[in-house]
Amino acid sequence: MKALVYQGTGKKAVEDRPIPEIAAPGDAIVKIAKTTICGTDLHILKGDVSTCEPGRVLGHEGVGVVTKVGSAVTAFQPGDRVLISCISACGKCEYCRKGMYSHCTTGGWILGNRIDGTQAEYVRVPHADTSLYKIPAGADEEALVMLSDILPTGFECGVLNGKIEPGSTVAIVGAGPVGLASLLTAQFYSPAELIMIDVDDNRLAMARQFGATATINSSDGKAAESVKKMTGDRGVDTAVEAVGVPATFLLCEDIVAPGGTIANVGVHGVKVDLHLERLWSHNITITTRLVDTVTTPMLLKTVQSRKIDPKRLITHRFTLDRILDAYDTFGKAATTHALKVLIEA
Amino acid sequence: MKALVYQGTGKKAVEDRPIPEIAAPGDAIVKIAKTTICGTDLHILKGDVSTCEPGRVLGHEGVGVVTKVGSAVTAFQPGDRVLISCISACGKCEYCRKGMYSHCTTGGWILGNRIDGTQAEYVRVPHADTSLYKIPAGADEEALVMLSDILPTGFECGVLNGKIEPGSTVAIVGAGPVGLASLLTAQFYSPAELIMIDVDDNRLAMARQFGATATINSSDGKAAESVKKMTGDRGVDTAVEAVGVPATFLLCEDIVAPGGTIANVGVHGVKVDLHLERLWSHNITITTRLVDTVTTPMLLKTVQSRKIDPKRLITHRFTLDRILDAYDTFGKAATTHALKVLIEA
Amino acid sequence: MKALVYQGTGKKAVEDRPIPEIAAPGDAIVKIAKTTICGTDLHILKGDVSTCEPGRVLGHEGVGVVTKVGSAVTAFQPGDRVLISCISACGKCEYCRKGMYSHCTTGGWILGNRIDGTQAEYVRVPHADTSLYKIPAGADEEALVMLSDILPTGFECGVLNGKIEPGSTVAIVGAGPVGLASLLTAQFYSPAELIMIDVDDNRLAMARQFGATATINSSDGKAAESVKKMTGDRGVDTAVEAVGVPATFLLCEDIVAPGGTIANVGVHGVKVDLHLERLWSHNITITTRLVDTVTTPMLLKTVQSRKIDPKRLITHRFTLDRILDAYDTFGKAATTHALKVLIEA
Amino acid sequence: MKALVYQGTGKKAVEDRPIPEIAAPGDAIVKIAKTTICGTDLHILKGDVSTCEPGRVLGHEGVGVVTKVGSAVTAFQPGDRVLISCISACGKCEYCRKGMYSHCTTGGWILGNRIDGTQAEYVRVPHADTSLYKIPAGADEEALVMLSDILPTGFECGVLNGKIEPGSTVAIVGAGPVGLASLLTAQFYSPAELIMIDVDDNRLAMARQFGATATINSSDGKAAESVKKMTGDRGVDTAVEAVGVPATFLLCEDIVAPGGTIANVGVHGVKVDLHLERLWSHNITITTRLVDTVTTPMLLKTVQSRKIDPKRLITHRFTLDRILDAYDTFGKAATTHALKVLIEA
Repeated sequence: MKALVYQGTGKKAVEDRPIPEIAAPGDAIVKIAKTTICGTDLHILKGDVSTCEPGRVLGHEGVGVVTKVGSAVTAFQPGDRVLISCISACGKCEYCRKGMYSHCTTGGWILGNRIDGTQAEYVRVPHADTSLYKIPAGADEEALVMLSDILPTGFECGVLNGKIEPGSTVAIVGAGPVGLASLLTAQFYSPAELIMIDVDDNRLAMARQFGATATINSSDGKAAESVKKMTGDRGVDTAVEAVGVPATFLLCEDIVAPGGTIANVGVHGVKVDLHLERLWSHNITITTRLVDTVTTPMLLKTVQSRKIDPKRLITHRFTLDRILDAYDTFGKAATTHALKVLIEA
Repeated sequence: MKALVYQGTGKKAVEDRPIPEIAAPGDAIVKIAKTTICGTDLHILKGDVSTCEPGRVLGHEGVGVVTKVGSAVTAFQPGDRVLISCISACGKCEYCRKGMYSHCTTGGWILGNRIDGTQAEYVRVPHADTSLYKIPAGADEEALVMLSDILPTGFECGVLNGKIEPGSTVAIVGAGPVGLASLLTAQFYSPAELIMIDVDDNRLAMARQFGATATINSSDGKAAESVKKMTGDRGVDTAVEAVGVPATFLLCEDIVAPGGTIANVGVHGVKVDLHLERLWSHNITITTRLVDTVTTPMLLKTVQSRKIDPKRLITHRFTLDRILDAYDTFGKAATTHALKVLIEA
Repeated sequence: MKALVYQGTGKKAVEDRPIPEIAAPGDAIVKIAKTTICGTDLHILKGDVSTCEPGRVLGHEGVGVVTKVGSAVTAFQPGDRVLISCISACGKCEYCRKGMYSHCTTGGWILGNRIDGTQAEYVRVPHADTSLYKIPAGADEEALVMLSDILPTGFECGVLNGKIEPGSTVAIVGAGPVGLASLLTAQFYSPAELIMIDVDDNRLAMARQFGATATINSSDGKAAESVKKMTGDRGVDTAVEAVGVPATFLLCEDIVAPGGTIANVGVHGVKVDLHLERLWSHNITITTRLVDTVTTPMLLKTVQSRKIDPKRLITHRFTLDRILDAYDTFGKAATTHALKVLIEA
Repeated sequence: MKALVYQGTGKKAVEDRPIPEIAAPGDAIVKIAKTTICGTDLHILKGDVSTCEPGRVLGHEGVGVVTKVGSAVTAFQPGDRVLISCISACGKCEYCRKGMYSHCTTGGWILGNRIDGTQAEYVRVPHADTSLYKIPAGADEEALVMLSDILPTGFECGVLNGKIEPGSTVAIVGAGPVGLASLLTAQFYSPAELIMIDVDDNRLAMARQFGATATINSSDGKAAESVKKMTGDRGVDTAVEAVGVPATFLLCEDIVAPGGTIANVGVHGVKVDLHLERLWSHNITITTRLVDTVTTPMLLKTVQSRKIDPKRLITHRFTLDRILDAYDTFGKAATTHALKVLIEA
């Protein structure tokens, strides 16, 4: 089968690989129908993710059809159309029982990282019973590819951790795909203000289409002042950090109101300054989270009942044999205006 | 009347002052029976608290008897024995309605800071109806002085924010009075492990008497290793920071388990490093809080029903005319082993 | 001034009454601009509300202008345009501090019940600081009349108590004004299914316009079967009881799924059967609540940011001198199709 | 092997049965070390539990040693000492993912009900990975038998659902084994008042030893009055119903304070009257629950750290060959004063 393989820092290629086989009783083999590329895949290619070794098939998102199941799999059988979660969960360990699948002792984010992933014609999915989700009849499978990772990430790490509620004031720093996923899912809770902050006017325009009530281009370094002006000098109830650098985290510290929450979504490479000399008395909450995908059933229902259309995040489409072009388009988002690129296997 | 007055950085004296008068319809005048000294008073004397100007009567803790009430006061009358909260709350503003009294727009921590305080024979208490609490018949008033500030601080900022629950593993960094108040009130929730960390063996011995299940002297810089060893390399569910310096906050970052909480209680003078390059994926929560004293009614019930004996925090007793000695004893806690010093007016 | 006065069972009249005066330091006098009639006013007229004595000016909803304030009022001054809450809250008592304003020891539902109400040119509002809300500039005052009672009732008693969340399945039994208020505010949380059940096809048609995803006319006694069919035999996550008779409560018992909630909004005159022989093992929650209006600030923000348009509940408009006609229209809702009737003073 | 077998209404006998075998990949076979008898077993013998057919080996509690595991079992191996949960949970279905194991679509309460149970030398445990718990080294296995059912039942259905918190006022109606389990575990949260109500003075005396702060013998029909007197006419924050008949549920309705909770633990055979004509406006919550045993890991930690000693519930000890005597003793609790009878296999 064809597969996109990480070959070491800066290198990737489409290789021919054997179709994966069942390796444990809980495994399923899924024939990929559609997959996509995540910002994390770009991190791997830069050599930033030490757990991912050369030779690995990348990819942790996708939908497809089950072709084989191990002897312990009871919830799925060959022929089932399924959504693949980016997080593999055993459902048994202490963390899984708490709904913290991201820290599953034998799972977590392993697809396209510690084991071969979904940017291929087939993928082996461990802990299939608790890591795959049946696709409802009539569902739009393109939309559901967004539920493998980006939607639950924006929702769990940004919206739920950020405790967004009716009438509240929210700022999302970073209008990339994950920030926009937070923007879409924030609207489940009817906040009064949804301020989107980025340095790219194109993305901010997109954000307004996606429901932002205001946008701020932070290039001039005055975003905090603008937010204070918009909120009667009070700041926001929830600041979602969806970039992952010190400057954007600092901006969140500057705009969070007393009693508010900073929900970190961004993947950080270096430490940040936490200004406790100011914030110690502000009754704030800061949260971090690797997506657990524990809300996938809930999100499936919101997509099925059309409360949200995650397909809007898809800007480009490719076939699997053109996946290198897809990477190119996704990697140059500033010029291609790519959000999510869909790849059909 | 006699009053302890802040006279500018490093200077304080007992002065003769006029008895305060009702200044607003919501005020009450309270004749102080007992008061105490807080670590914050020492901060003021060092010149660290810019809101407190020379000439201010210090003190924000105490019990006493109401002598006069303003025309709008309905819950109290002269003769009522009362507990004075360190936080004045109007009960009307947006923050008070959310139970965030610390940020009351016309109150908050004002006693002994922005207005004259309780280290005197009399004090004027604004917003009396929502800032005083009736002392139940037969209550031990010495114990209740601990409910003005230190008990709710340890409980709200450390225990409640730290989400301590039955069977959980807790570390409290800092065995000073506030850390010990967290230790006492943590036991309301029956955690399995209560590890106390400090550099002072005397305080650690005290902590064991107060219910710590283990203690660590962190002088050798190996406290994180010790905690990891005690917890099967997992870390603690809750780390309470009760010191307020970068090193102790960093220790909390090092020992908090995935899914855990760092509850900051300490008053910080400088920023700290937040290692998001490591913690972004650990699903942790960090909280800050200035005490709201919103749990005072709950704490009164726990004291009345003997679930806790806060009087154990009192190590020394003085009369008001010897308050300078009391400050001396409290300021040299390392040698006097003072926790809280009680002052009778 | 003109006022609608309850004259004993079945009797009411427009009388000439003196303009009310400040009676306590916390009072405000409000000149009514707009008011409305509540189902509870009809209950009073039937003689069902023993706390309301003949001679009482009815009405507990409205917006207006403050004309006088007592000496203890600090948040309002003459000239302020205000929303009057149906619940008077002192903000000081044990219940108010918990946000349970409905049980305020010196307030609660007293307007138009224990003291004269808002169906008049002027009304005296006790505890003004915590029972009135400033009307934002540019707000639609007709819409805000719905925030005195019906919106917070539908929201607090039905939606919040019912724990409605994204993707959940909800049935609301009773499509009268309060049921429709629950329907409108339920959408703050993006449930997947919002099934409206009533015996009146006109109201069900209205419900579909207001966002119901399905409607069931329960006249045939088969509503429970229909709900089971719609939900794959599972039942609903939340059943909102918005009628107040045994049959509708029983329907809620029949349709609530294991793990679900019955949120009672209806005012009941007789006991109901609770089938614990079946439900004891179903992990359900049943809640009751007299509206606290503690969410009024939140609801104001949702109206101001156009997340909801409560004005849609207004079907008829009258002037105060025609209030008897208004009562007539409201009382014959089955034929007039009245939901809320607006009265301009 | 020897096994206690239900032979139809009113009939039971010790029979010789074949040792059970692995029937599904997720099964484990456990050699029973200790088991006990539950009130539910008596219900079965009365013919009240239609799902339990004659020929069934009874019992759903116990500790033992794993002797065999199916091919899909990864968390246990032969030789492991284990606690058997009374609830079998697949860990995969919609209910299990929500922590509502009691409603597992292929599990729930099946042991000693739909499949053979633990009152035997061996038992087959389905879904072993998520239905067994490793016994920590050095643990007291007698104490742990109480964690199969009675402790989590008292804790989850009574204490957690009852939202007991520091300083709160609690009444537990019914001082049988489950009510006493609620009493023991309620103390995890340091309530101020723990009032125990029963008609048996012996059990009330036991309750005082177990931590009740007050007891009421309700034989005279004046328990509600007594509770009102004890609580300043306010009622209790939490009323735990641990009997399961209309009169005791009604008592809970009579004593619950506004804003309070009735947590039903009792197994009811007939409907009860719910006085909504009074309670509709009292802001109360009523919960029902079949134990989920989702707190077993937490409870294990509290036992290991000696926050609770569940062994105190054991009043009598028998060997498996004398299990008929054990049933006799347990069935005549009024005269034998039996709480839990321990059976060694």
